[in-house]
Amino acid sequence: MYSFKNDYSEGMHPRILNALAASNLEQTEGYGEDHYSKNAADLLKEKIGRKDIDIHLLTGGTQTNLTAISAFLRPHQAVIAAHSGHIFTHETGAIEATGHKVIAVEVKDGKLSPEHVQSVLDSHTDEHMVKPKMVYISNSTEVGSIYKKSELAALSQFCRENNLLLYLDGARIGSALSSKENDMTLADLGSLTDAFYIGGTKNGALMGEALVICLDSLKEDFRFHIKQKGALLAKGRMLGIQFTELFRDNLYFELAEHANKMAQLLQAEISKAGYKFLTHSPSNQIFPIFPNDLIQKLQEKYAFHSWEKIDDFHTAIRLVTSWATEEEEVRKFIEEIILSHRY
Amino acid sequence: MYSFKNDYSEGMHPRILNALAASNLEQTEGYGEDHYSKNAADLLKEKIGRKDIDIHLLTGGTQTNLTAISAFLRPHQAVIAAHSGHIFTHETGAIEATGHKVIAVEVKDGKLSPEHVQSVLDSHTDEHMVKPKMVYISNSTEVGSIYKKSELAALSQFCRENNLLLYLDGARIGSALSSKENDMTLADLGSLTDAFYIGGTKNGALMGEALVICLDSLKEDFRFHIKQKGALLAKGRMLGIQFTELFRDNLYFELAEHANKMAQLLQAEISKAGYKFLTHSPSNQIFPIFPNDLIQKLQEKYAFHSWEKIDDFHTAIRLVTSWATEEEEVRKFIEEIILSHRY
Amino acid sequence: MYSFKNDYSEGMHPRILNALAASNLEQTEGYGEDHYSKNAADLLKEKIGRKDIDIHLLTGGTQTNLTAISAFLRPHQAVIAAHSGHIFTHETGAIEATGHKVIAVEVKDGKLSPEHVQSVLDSHTDEHMVKPKMVYISNSTEVGSIYKKSELAALSQFCRENNLLLYLDGARIGSALSSKENDMTLADLGSLTDAFYIGGTKNGALMGEALVICLDSLKEDFRFHIKQKGALLAKGRMLGIQFTELFRDNLYFELAEHANKMAQLLQAEISKAGYKFLTHSPSNQIFPIFPNDLIQKLQEKYAFHSWEKIDDFHTAIRLVTSWATEEEEVRKFIEEIILSHRY
Amino acid sequence: MYSFKNDYSEGMHPRILNALAASNLEQTEGYGEDHYSKNAADLLKEKIGRKDIDIHLLTGGTQTNLTAISAFLRPHQAVIAAHSGHIFTHETGAIEATGHKVIAVEVKDGKLSPEHVQSVLDSHTDEHMVKPKMVYISNSTEVGSIYKKSELAALSQFCRENNLLLYLDGARIGSALSSKENDMTLADLGSLTDAFYIGGTKNGALMGEALVICLDSLKEDFRFHIKQKGALLAKGRMLGIQFTELFRDNLYFELAEHANKMAQLLQAEISKAGYKFLTHSPSNQIFPIFPNDLIQKLQEKYAFHSWEKIDDFHTAIRLVTSWATEEEEVRKFIEEIILSHRY
Repeated sequence: MYSFKNDYSEGMHPRILNALAASNLEQTEGYGEDHYSKNAADLLKEKIGRKDIDIHLLTGGTQTNLTAISAFLRPHQAVIAAHSGHIFTHETGAIEATGHKVIAVEVKDGKLSPEHVQSVLDSHTDEHMVKPKMVYISNSTEVGSIYKKSELAALSQFCRENNLLLYLDGARIGSALSSKENDMTLADLGSLTDAFYIGGTKNGALMGEALVICLDSLKEDFRFHIKQKGALLAKGRMLGIQFTELFRDNLYFELAEHANKMAQLLQAEISKAGYKFLTHSPSNQIFPIFPNDLIQKLQEKYAFHSWEKIDDFHTAIRLVTSWATEEEEVRKFIEEIILSHRY
Repeated sequence: MYSFKNDYSEGMHPRILNALAASNLEQTEGYGEDHYSKNAADLLKEKIGRKDIDIHLLTGGTQTNLTAISAFLRPHQAVIAAHSGHIFTHETGAIEATGHKVIAVEVKDGKLSPEHVQSVLDSHTDEHMVKPKMVYISNSTEVGSIYKKSELAALSQFCRENNLLLYLDGARIGSALSSKENDMTLADLGSLTDAFYIGGTKNGALMGEALVICLDSLKEDFRFHIKQKGALLAKGRMLGIQFTELFRDNLYFELAEHANKMAQLLQAEISKAGYKFLTHSPSNQIFPIFPNDLIQKLQEKYAFHSWEKIDDFHTAIRLVTSWATEEEEVRKFIEEIILSHRY
Repeated sequence: MYSFKNDYSEGMHPRILNALAASNLEQTEGYGEDHYSKNAADLLKEKIGRKDIDIHLLTGGTQTNLTAISAFLRPHQAVIAAHSGHIFTHETGAIEATGHKVIAVEVKDGKLSPEHVQSVLDSHTDEHMVKPKMVYISNSTEVGSIYKKSELAALSQFCRENNLLLYLDGARIGSALSSKENDMTLADLGSLTDAFYIGGTKNGALMGEALVICLDSLKEDFRFHIKQKGALLAKGRMLGIQFTELFRDNLYFELAEHANKMAQLLQAEISKAGYKFLTHSPSNQIFPIFPNDLIQKLQEKYAFHSWEKIDDFHTAIRLVTSWATEEEEVRKFIEEIILSHRY
Repeated sequence: MYSFKNDYSEGMHPRILNALAASNLEQTEGYGEDHYSKNAADLLKEKIGRKDIDIHLLTGGTQTNLTAISAFLRPHQAVIAAHSGHIFTHETGAIEATGHKVIAVEVKDGKLSPEHVQSVLDSHTDEHMVKPKMVYISNSTEVGSIYKKSELAALSQFCRENNLLLYLDGARIGSALSSKENDMTLADLGSLTDAFYIGGTKNGALMGEALVICLDSLKEDFRFHIKQKGALLAKGRMLGIQFTELFRDNLYFELAEHANKMAQLLQAEISKAGYKFLTHSPSNQIFPIFPNDLIQKLQEKYAFHSWEKIDDFHTAIRLVTSWATEEEEVRKFIEEIILSHRY
């Protein structure tokens, strides 16, 4: 059984394993105050092209989102997200558990535009309603789409004009920035958002997300919030070691490129075989629409998620590739589809 | 500079590193639903001697405490702790951040007795005050002391008679249960507490704490709470692999015994050299009282925490040993003290 | 300028004022433990026809909702509401501020059916999402509609079969139960819901809502929650005096009947004048759709809320009547509309 | 049975009742946006001698404390209070329920000094502990003592030098400022604190506390917080009417003076009769130490709280007087004591 269920089915990239091994018995400071964590922060600042940003290493996406969002908002403020946004649907109410409403906007492609945000502002007019204060977006989104630079720039400008914070969930930012359709860099994120995070877990790390705080007023005392949310790792160095390894050269983006290449290979061949897709995805998650009996047959040999019922006979499934996806397995999967199509 | 600052200065025990390497490219289910995590849970149930308990693997102590305590209490209920208890002093208000008051009792040796708890019950009489519902203890405590079985049994009985939950923070349970003065087993914890956790971070793991829920009524839906607090690791298997390695034989206790042996060696020799200690500690944290000039001299070669000012000329310091502490370094440190004493 | 803006523009019914005056200098126990509050609770139990219910008197709707809902739910549990539900839109995120997600369902008439709830259950399947545990409904709803007994019974049965709590916001329960289309009694609410509240503020009281807890498991320690939320009034007697006055005979329903009569008079005449309504409302809030120039003209003499833009030339407005609405003013308002229609 | 249990045993001062009656059928805006509430705010600004302050009217002390404190603090920040402070002991963890730790300092007379606060700062040094950000004091305190102007000024200066907010709970500020030992005015509070509240409930109002926000940075969006905590009264005018009545002349202080006079009469005579007091109180709460058999005898005719056991034969009780306390009853109570003393 080969899995296309997600991009965290395997452990860590071998280079990271080696780095952990090499440093294993060295004594360092705890709680992320070690030289590896500092080095990782320096590397990231360099890649982002700004020294005046703060970098914090945390262990997971939900943890990073809840720690950042609850630290950045006052009690009456709310965060706007797409209806498909991870914080709205798949974090067990983590944001609400810190006291903040997530205002969801129905969108088709997982992306928010200034018009979407404006509609929320229009309907939140006084103190009987929460005050929208932050816009949350994901890149790539939960349905595989990515933001163009012009789209992010428009959203960024709108947020600044309307005194809103712009926060970008980068659980799959590697895949987004490595996509063929991408026209952005880490530096663009650093100048267009107020905070964002660079996901390690889904791109080669054993775990780890690097939160980047760009806006000065959000930086103060942030380590207090990390500790309070139970997110300050005693052996924080293991996060520093991982991000150092991923960013000391181009490894992070090479891994994402491989994931994208595997997904695009799947997409091209499935398309050739005559199937349609639920969304346009240039990243490492694709959503082909298959007949239910084909799905049943594929499930005998492959693991993946059923995503959305299309009609009584068809379902969109989600296929996710990663740095560890083997091309041979991808080709076997394609063959299975072509074979099934033939008969 | 050698560090006696804490028991998480190094990485992980080599056997754990090997186990991570061996399993690295295997595909598994995410979020702790993999076979390693299940195996670790089975091993722990066996060691504790109960099948009717729930095991959850989390990444850190504060995270485990806040997830468990907020899941177990209703909004108006409070938790009783020693004034020195970790949740009261060193978790940045993590418990309060989930809405619950921590009621602190001043104690000398870090331990709570039924009398301490009774005094809290006596002063909390109606709905104008929080309702004490849980007793939080640590073993070993934050000052190195440990509970005898009779003490824990008395507290357990008192809690059951008074409809209170008993929760044990086992960040250093390995050291406690491996102490020469200990007369308890994991099985005793399983029968005397309502929930406790077995600390991995401070005893050989790269990270990881195993929460054990003994009381049936506390079990329901616990994974929801883990996810909501940002504590559900995507690659949860890495926790399962570690606890499997620590508990598939006696490794966990062997590591703790080494730590204790190093601390007791330090303690014996420092005592011989004529120094006193702040607390009686049979575990891996000791608190010698040194003249300030000796401390200053030691700091040139060793890292450790100053713990408490005794008078204008003396301070209690904290020395912590671990599974990785090298006997040679311990002996050098002792020599330093003896030498300094001589002149 | 006469106001149809809401049902809390005036003070209290004169009989309540008299009762406050008559009792004013009497000394009583504080915090709702006085004989007036106890008497009010007894009267309500009698009207509801159950002795095994708990009654708590609070000061406002949002306060009652947040205190009850946060007391009834565990941290990972969520409440389902209509998109138009007060807790979702007009309480400044009060429920989320206590940590709980409000899951909104888009409905047209403000009412939830078992099908709506089922759709939420269908999409909340595991621990990565909140756990729906409570269904929140309002009667009358925020758009003036009311539940028929059969509808509430169906919802109640569905909730019980699916282990969900059913909570009814009765800010305008007086108007609902006094409506010509109503076929329910307070006793029905007592047997079909798990908790509900009887609104005083919008039906003759200076302030005050009576929360009724029907389900045994929700009763324990509820006064702790009231106090913790800042909702335990020192001179709680003033709530007891008011509810005693409203329920010692039929005053509560007489006041609601008057409000309904005034609204229905408005509705009938506006309808005759040829205007349509946004919703079908048999209660004290009606939503006529008027041309914008008529609205502008009416605003010179009357206060009311614009509710929803219909098209570039028409808007639905909200007219609310109360126990204090004067028939003479209603007739003048109608005349204004008829006159305007004529030309 | 006459009650000295508290200062909220009766209803409201007759002039307030009259004002409520006179305005009863007038239509006004809801939610405190009526002209009475605005007028009350203007009157208070005048009495405090500052126009650049914000006034908000709420219904109770716990409600005011929790709304203000949670609005003013960021999640990791804590509030320092005396061990006897109302928020620490008698608000059912209301502050913690909003996520903030209350750091208690053991004091004898209910008052905090810069030294007390400094000791808290000294022990809170890094991100593993909450960050102390606010100092909470009560005047008069929970044990009847009051602050001298020099004491408040010293605390105020210390807070400003240490970037701490100073918040004063004025549930009994009327009694404090009307005390013979007092040397402060409302204007002093306006210049020395960052926020404080003027208690109505315990000084003649049916309910109501006026929160005064002095520091600019604390003012923004405060009405959102009031609404979110369920504290925005629909008929907010009733608070405006009351504070207008209390402050349109000197009524507020006249009522407090009467309360103080009655307490001091009790104190003088009890002292003459040879009894001692638990605390030095120049306000409307006194704490005589009586033999237990005298207490038992007094309880046959009078209601009051037992406060603290002194020894096996003596107990300190609390006697509270108010604007409504009758001198005749005070004299009868004194006679009872003198008589009992004689035999």
